[in-house]
Amino acid sequence: MRAADELRHAVEAYLDTLTLAPELGRLEDAVRYALGSGGKRIRPVLCLAVAEAAGGELEDALPAAAAVELVHTFSLVHDDLPALDDDVERRGRPSAHIAFGEGAALLAGDALLAEALRQALTYDDPAIARELVDATLGMIGGQHRDITGDDADLAEVERLKTGSLFSAAVGLGVRAAGVPDDDQAPWRTFGDELGLLFQVVDDLIDGDGFAVRLGATGARQLADETTDRAREGLEELSADVSVLRELVDVLAARTA
Amino acid sequence: MRAADELRHAVEAYLDTLTLAPELGRLEDAVRYALGSGGKRIRPVLCLAVAEAAGGELEDALPAAAAVELVHTFSLVHDDLPALDDDVERRGRPSAHIAFGEGAALLAGDALLAEALRQALTYDDPAIARELVDATLGMIGGQHRDITGDDADLAEVERLKTGSLFSAAVGLGVRAAGVPDDDQAPWRTFGDELGLLFQVVDDLIDGDGFAVRLGATGARQLADETTDRAREGLEELSADVSVLRELVDVLAARTA
Repeated sequence: MRAADELRHAVEAYLDTLTLAPELGRLEDAVRYALGSGGKRIRPVLCLAVAEAAGGELEDALPAAAAVELVHTFSLVHDDLPALDDDVERRGRPSAHIAFGEGAALLAGDALLAEALRQALTYDDPAIARELVDATLGMIGGQHRDITGDDADLAEVERLKTGSLFSAAVGLGVRAAGVPDDDQAPWRTFGDELGLLFQVVDDLIDGDGFAVRLGATGARQLADETTDRAREGLEELSADVSVLRELVDVLAARTA
Repeated sequence: MRAADELRHAVEAYLDTLTLAPELGRLEDAVRYALGSGGKRIRPVLCLAVAEAAGGELEDALPAAAAVELVHTFSLVHDDLPALDDDVERRGRPSAHIAFGEGAALLAGDALLAEALRQALTYDDPAIARELVDATLGMIGGQHRDITGDDADLAEVERLKTGSLFSAAVGLGVRAAGVPDDDQAPWRTFGDELGLLFQVVDDLIDGDGFAVRLGATGARQLADETTDRAREGLEELSADVSVLRELVDVLAARTA
């Protein structure tokens, strides 16, 4: 069982040495810039931790973990564009479209999504790529509800926007570990709780979303209840869930 | 053997009744708008014609053909955005971003790419989705060379931008028909010639690209030579290539 930090290093090393399609040419610079923005790699670490807890090998889960991070990065690059959030900074650096221009950033986002699928398709089992595509479509649908204000049901919007990819991180982890379909449900329930926890804490930090709808106290209470359910879900798994418990604690206590 | 027109009707019917991911919600409107723009469906018809000529069933090749058209449509929606070509019209109608706004068009393009992969992943053989992803990355790389002026080798840029997806249309067609890897080469060579032919004729119509580099006479000569090679390639296939020969003639004689 590797600690979360070791898993993060493994993800970083894998992403650093990722061979991109040579046809991308100089667009590779923008793709690598976006990928190297120093995020916390929560989703791929979750994917790897689940795979290890479920009895899988780290090496077998790395392409799946990278695929999830590539989809996440694709969504950030496109979200930052003037057509959507118009954010000029991302994690203390100029956004991709500031650094490389809007056209290149648009294409880099497209390339990140295609590269994600290329990673997911290194597996012989197409179920891994299918799950990633479905999660991506859910995420896109959530983003669209967000920009159109079609968000009467905030929990549903957040489940799509953020939860889809958290669920996929867990789903790809168990698949990469070879857990049979029939035994995946408790893992997936845990993934759903973790996605909700991440989003509620995010909204508490940013003072939007659930923090506005429920007030700070109500949102904190929802975060605490979700944390409890995530922890309880872990106890029901007959597996060494120590690293996953650590991830729950980190996400629950997050302040930035 | 169905005629090219019948194949086009089959593509249209399949696309019209395509079930999109329900999570897309109202974004489906923009996706369907882009898909219903009344193009000639050259790539999916080519895919189906190849599949039938190679002994496959139309029904088995329809998801692959649709996947190719979805990738093509994704690229048009993103190309039309102000960040790239800034085209306000597409085939006589407002571009997707004029009709639905830039943010929705950006997301609709992303959704089209993901839906393309979903179609390609309806097959148990992941090679079909892999080939589509590789072609998409080639196309994106070609678009990037185009906007950065990194196009000293015009033939290479065009091979990536247009040829990748033509090749994939043929490649997916032979795969859907179950042609073994070792027997695919002559089909693929034909696909490459057809992609080049399409692009040279396109440039002759638009008065750019090859028409500028080689002059109208030189480009016409290249088109004629490519047409001859495509026809010769067909004769070497031990298959009923009548519909494919018709497609070559249509592409060679195209004036719009």
